[in-house]
Amino acid sequence: MIHLYTGDGKGKTTASLGLAFRALGHGRRVYMIQFMKGSCVYGETIMAESLKDFTLVQFGRKEFVDRTNPSPEDYEEARKALTHARRVLAEGLYDLIILDELNVALDYGLIELSEVMNILDNAPSSSEIVITGRNAVPELIEKAHLVTEMKEIKHPYRIGVSARKGIEF
Amino acid sequence: MIHLYTGDGKGKTTASLGLAFRALGHGRRVYMIQFMKGSCVYGETIMAESLKDFTLVQFGRKEFVDRTNPSPEDYEEARKALTHARRVLAEGLYDLIILDELNVALDYGLIELSEVMNILDNAPSSSEIVITGRNAVPELIEKAHLVTEMKEIKHPYRIGVSARKGIEF
Repeated sequence: MIHLYTGDGKGKTTASLGLAFRALGHGRRVYMIQFMKGSCVYGETIMAESLKDFTLVQFGRKEFVDRTNPSPEDYEEARKALTHARRVLAEGLYDLIILDELNVALDYGLIELSEVMNILDNAPSSSEIVITGRNAVPELIEKAHLVTEMKEIKHPYRIGVSARKGIEF
Repeated sequence: MIHLYTGDGKGKTTASLGLAFRALGHGRRVYMIQFMKGSCVYGETIMAESLKDFTLVQFGRKEFVDRTNPSPEDYEEARKALTHARRVLAEGLYDLIILDELNVALDYGLIELSEVMNILDNAPSSSEIVITGRNAVPELIEKAHLVTEMKEIKHPYRIGVSARKGIEF
């Protein structure tokens, strides 16, 4: 089954982490691949080090990707992330596979929709796949079984609060 | 800061668990109070047993609450949950306090808005408070700093898939 969390509101990656948390509670194995989040230390990165059934692999440069002009390295990292996802899904060793920010990599044109669809089509049907990121393309919304749009109603950045450790990352 | 996750889509409780996961990664202490979820074994219940900084307390009967005619026990359990929340918040020992499904308890008339507001007003400003559940009242949306509406775009129950262990609970 494919879950898709999209929209401009907070809670997409966070919801996928919540699914990981719950699955781990039931003794399931979780693999999370983060697109466009290279070398960042998030709370989840630290958890991955201490929980044996939770694997987290990050791809991407540390810097934000310039949407209008991605660097060759951005394409390369996104391609690597997708190849990694293909392998992890094909292996079938994990119960829950999170492709975090895959929607954004697609939206930025760093990866090809046809390749994503091919990977999903070839994934074992027993896999629970979670895809996150804003601006999900209609084809993925069509393909997913469960789609939630996180809609921003109110955000503290608007009132001048910046991202805080332990909460936003 | 108060986070509010509402709407009819999947991912509200799950997002709060993701925040817990992330906060725990940073060595923060998390306390989760679940309204209207008595005696249920969720993935998070099991995680709470193994993670020392994550406490989960459930209130409510095992059965679903009849919205048109809640039982005296439903009121009593919700009241207990709220009293518990007041104490936990006042103690100030936790960095992240999750009041899961509080919106639903309010919406069902099991607890009073004025009491919820009073508890929030008296919480230490350093507390990160997360409130979840559909049908959030306007007063809480107004009070919260960060509000996300989880909007259901597509749900597998509609195509006949029922709740699965390790995913929905």
